[in-house]
Amino acid sequence: MDNKFPGKDISIEDLKTKFPLAAKKNKNHKSKFKIAGVEFGGNTIPVFAGPNMVESKKLILDVAKNVKSSGAHFLRGGAFKPLTFPYRNKKYNETREDGIKWLAEAKDKYNIPVITEIMEEKYLDLVCDVADILQIGSRNMQNYPLITACAKTKKPIMIKRHYGSSLRDWLGAAEYVLIEGNKKVILCERGVSVPHTHRSTSRFLLDLQVVPAAQEVTHLPIIVDPSHATFWRQWVRPMALASIASGADGVMLEVHPDPHNSAVDPLQPIDFKEFRNLMKEMNIISNQISKRRIL
Amino acid sequence: MDNKFPGKDISIEDLKTKFPLAAKKNKNHKSKFKIAGVEFGGNTIPVFAGPNMVESKKLILDVAKNVKSSGAHFLRGGAFKPLTFPYRNKKYNETREDGIKWLAEAKDKYNIPVITEIMEEKYLDLVCDVADILQIGSRNMQNYPLITACAKTKKPIMIKRHYGSSLRDWLGAAEYVLIEGNKKVILCERGVSVPHTHRSTSRFLLDLQVVPAAQEVTHLPIIVDPSHATFWRQWVRPMALASIASGADGVMLEVHPDPHNSAVDPLQPIDFKEFRNLMKEMNIISNQISKRRIL
Amino acid sequence: MDNKFPGKDISIEDLKTKFPLAAKKNKNHKSKFKIAGVEFGGNTIPVFAGPNMVESKKLILDVAKNVKSSGAHFLRGGAFKPLTFPYRNKKYNETREDGIKWLAEAKDKYNIPVITEIMEEKYLDLVCDVADILQIGSRNMQNYPLITACAKTKKPIMIKRHYGSSLRDWLGAAEYVLIEGNKKVILCERGVSVPHTHRSTSRFLLDLQVVPAAQEVTHLPIIVDPSHATFWRQWVRPMALASIASGADGVMLEVHPDPHNSAVDPLQPIDFKEFRNLMKEMNIISNQISKRRIL
Amino acid sequence: MDNKFPGKDISIEDLKTKFPLAAKKNKNHKSKFKIAGVEFGGNTIPVFAGPNMVESKKLILDVAKNVKSSGAHFLRGGAFKPLTFPYRNKKYNETREDGIKWLAEAKDKYNIPVITEIMEEKYLDLVCDVADILQIGSRNMQNYPLITACAKTKKPIMIKRHYGSSLRDWLGAAEYVLIEGNKKVILCERGVSVPHTHRSTSRFLLDLQVVPAAQEVTHLPIIVDPSHATFWRQWVRPMALASIASGADGVMLEVHPDPHNSAVDPLQPIDFKEFRNLMKEMNIISNQISKRRIL
Repeated sequence: MDNKFPGKDISIEDLKTKFPLAAKKNKNHKSKFKIAGVEFGGNTIPVFAGPNMVESKKLILDVAKNVKSSGAHFLRGGAFKPLTFPYRNKKYNETREDGIKWLAEAKDKYNIPVITEIMEEKYLDLVCDVADILQIGSRNMQNYPLITACAKTKKPIMIKRHYGSSLRDWLGAAEYVLIEGNKKVILCERGVSVPHTHRSTSRFLLDLQVVPAAQEVTHLPIIVDPSHATFWRQWVRPMALASIASGADGVMLEVHPDPHNSAVDPLQPIDFKEFRNLMKEMNIISNQISKRRIL
Repeated sequence: MDNKFPGKDISIEDLKTKFPLAAKKNKNHKSKFKIAGVEFGGNTIPVFAGPNMVESKKLILDVAKNVKSSGAHFLRGGAFKPLTFPYRNKKYNETREDGIKWLAEAKDKYNIPVITEIMEEKYLDLVCDVADILQIGSRNMQNYPLITACAKTKKPIMIKRHYGSSLRDWLGAAEYVLIEGNKKVILCERGVSVPHTHRSTSRFLLDLQVVPAAQEVTHLPIIVDPSHATFWRQWVRPMALASIASGADGVMLEVHPDPHNSAVDPLQPIDFKEFRNLMKEMNIISNQISKRRIL
Repeated sequence: MDNKFPGKDISIEDLKTKFPLAAKKNKNHKSKFKIAGVEFGGNTIPVFAGPNMVESKKLILDVAKNVKSSGAHFLRGGAFKPLTFPYRNKKYNETREDGIKWLAEAKDKYNIPVITEIMEEKYLDLVCDVADILQIGSRNMQNYPLITACAKTKKPIMIKRHYGSSLRDWLGAAEYVLIEGNKKVILCERGVSVPHTHRSTSRFLLDLQVVPAAQEVTHLPIIVDPSHATFWRQWVRPMALASIASGADGVMLEVHPDPHNSAVDPLQPIDFKEFRNLMKEMNIISNQISKRRIL
Repeated sequence: MDNKFPGKDISIEDLKTKFPLAAKKNKNHKSKFKIAGVEFGGNTIPVFAGPNMVESKKLILDVAKNVKSSGAHFLRGGAFKPLTFPYRNKKYNETREDGIKWLAEAKDKYNIPVITEIMEEKYLDLVCDVADILQIGSRNMQNYPLITACAKTKKPIMIKRHYGSSLRDWLGAAEYVLIEGNKKVILCERGVSVPHTHRSTSRFLLDLQVVPAAQEVTHLPIIVDPSHATFWRQWVRPMALASIASGADGVMLEVHPDPHNSAVDPLQPIDFKEFRNLMKEMNIISNQISKRRIL
């Protein structure tokens, strides 16, 4: 670790006083841990794949079967999801308790571990029954009471970066997990907001610089979600490959059997065939860059 | 090309009325052209390498020799450079006419073509004598009289994106070149500005989404400059590899024999050895991704 | 209300389906309601004043007495406060239950109503005992379970805008309160984040355009907090006057007897004398602009 | 002037080495100068009013007559204008030499001085014949050769801030004028770009914090253009009043006899009646705030 950083945002003092548990102890310090038998921070680059929302039992079973057969390490899918407005409709809705149940069925049937979002402390028991990793969504990145409650369960936790948050504040959220003695924390980059004058024609901009930036200051694994950032399925492949090339410790992808009819954000998921091909390409790149394997 | 785009920034109407010459005519339309014998938009991924500023004759000869031997296709280096404040000092200064002369010597001696910045119409003859590609700097991206004057020389032109500019406005600048009948235009991404609250600890954020975004709407080659964006030499390798993985048509890198003593931005150049290794790694990735070669 | 809006962010459809309760029914629709006898949305422009944190009993009693005598309508002060990192020290700490108790004493002794932040549902009873208005902090602007729990108490609620949030998403948060039948909702602007390349030398940029923008689409009162945005006491007066001139329905100010020794953000509070003078100036401007009174 | 600044952007060292001529020498240092008999930086707050483009002789004569009678100090209007794309049409076009001639007629007939944009050195003589102030547009804020050429004419110069530029870089541009011995420099704020996630439903966000920020470090007058920033005529009045309340040294407004039929940006100009009323209101506020007069 060098003695200074290019921006003013993180200082050497921060490493000692703001997030001493998340900070690297030395240049080669890197957390390695297993979740459901899958290694993080080591020779594997885990891939999380699945739909945005657990729309139906049929959907999630279909996806679990397919992504598992293509080599995905974890099944992702939201049963609970924060919605910007309080109104729901038949298509655009959470499946909540039902969704959790269907995730459990998919997990059992296809022997694939699960990551899903937790939004309220009162659902912790329900969600912990199925989830191998608890996902803190970007809107809750600074909801410290929720993060602390999740940390106390000792379940592994993945913290998505808020679109308006610095690496410094993100590591503050991770520190709230670590201070509870829970060491299995994963960071997930999903795009930051940029002025409309700079946009390369999408909603968010995937911040791949944060991959080496994070790896310079923290020992925690950092994964990248190119689907949410690009919001455009044509760009998912190039950005997923670029994520691997930047040194990411994992990738999260939105996969749907019929992307155009996804209940939410139908422009962004890739289909099963695209996913299968992408897994092979990502595997080749990761081998070349860092001798790490995906398949 | 799909019939709609994820953001509102570029419309189908824009392709027809705002930048019809820069717009793709069909899905596979891609400009291919040669500059000084090097192919752009084809099976080669050209690499531009050299110092930020042409500090001295010794420096530029040394760099030319080394980057050429490592496989660089073009020598880069600024003799003219816009400076935010009107004061100069001994170390931080432009070498102007001298710098152009030294670039010419390096070009002749090591048989490597040259790209350098042009800032004023009155220096066009001088700069055209040595430059194989005229570079329009990001601060001049919307200086249309300068761009038009350069276009009329029929020299190939590389337009750096302003840190606050959209792809749409950038293609407007390219259209000003194309309308003069000059077809050799290269786009160069070099980082956009993002709020300090989102920064991953650097000044600019490399926008790699703009690579597939540009390739969706324009036939022009797009290259990436990870040195200026990251401003931190440790991140140049991961971001250069990510640039290739995102599908970039070329890469521009700041290389200096003694980076810590670079006259400007000493945190950002890589040294000769790092450059040599990076060329090999980029070559492997480009072969895997797209069968294109660097070496 | 016009039939279109300058940006694409809010559509006429949004008014009907995303936040129908927050949306204006007609051009002159404006919510008027009283809280602790003070009128919002009418002929008064309420001012909230006090320290960032309720540091001690002595401090909050001192401030209550002084701001009340200068005409402040509400006493503000945080007993609970989200902290980006989990570590506390003697100076920089929350006073929590003690702070709430001291606020209650100040309220009783000087007959001034209180606004204070609520961060967790489990403290709702405690906080509701003293607070006349519950403050949802900017980091919790999208914490919908917390907002819903607060709404159900029927206490008036002020929602601070997140530094990275649009007016559209902010009104979504307000709708979560209104849908519970709680009609006393106040919006509070406190600065947005802008790229470091645009910063006029502060952390956040006060968005005063959001005042007329909000008043164009919603009937809810909107107040402005210039202290947090400017982070610099010298700019509080000009920005407070500008807030009134932009048509704001209220102002929130950080006031401290000894600003340089404020436990948090010592560059931003104004002192008692500055506050007293500012109240008079704001009163004159509000009378001139809109016949509304502060004093 | 305090010994430190809230952000890291401008340092005490900058005042001495980057823009010593633009920097204040002491706390009360303020440039005062007259242009065409109108005082800047003193007891007057000059108002510049007129259409975006000098569309026709009839239009500019009509506007000159009306804004003069309402008390405007300068007539504004563009004959030359940078256009993002190289295509013109009948309605959206520059009137160039004709426009300059019509401005001269309006100036003579109604005895009102003129400010207009200069884009190329080759038109300097032409533009200087009519202009009392040369306007450097925001896209040319870092076009130092153009700024230097303008400075040498000794004509007063107004520099519009680029939407992506800091106060620091803006003062660098001003320094390029001052170093030529030309002391009549005016700064003009016109809105900065912010992420779409923060937008209060417009293209740009008027940065009023930059008014006290500029006045803290420079003696140059700073004026505000609320029309371009808001892009929405309904918000021009509140933002113009807020500009005055923030302490601005002048205001620039887009005024058109028939706003809906303005050749460019028809959503943004105000009409003659709105302008007349606004002048009176701005005059009252300026008197109250700072004893300065508009009328």
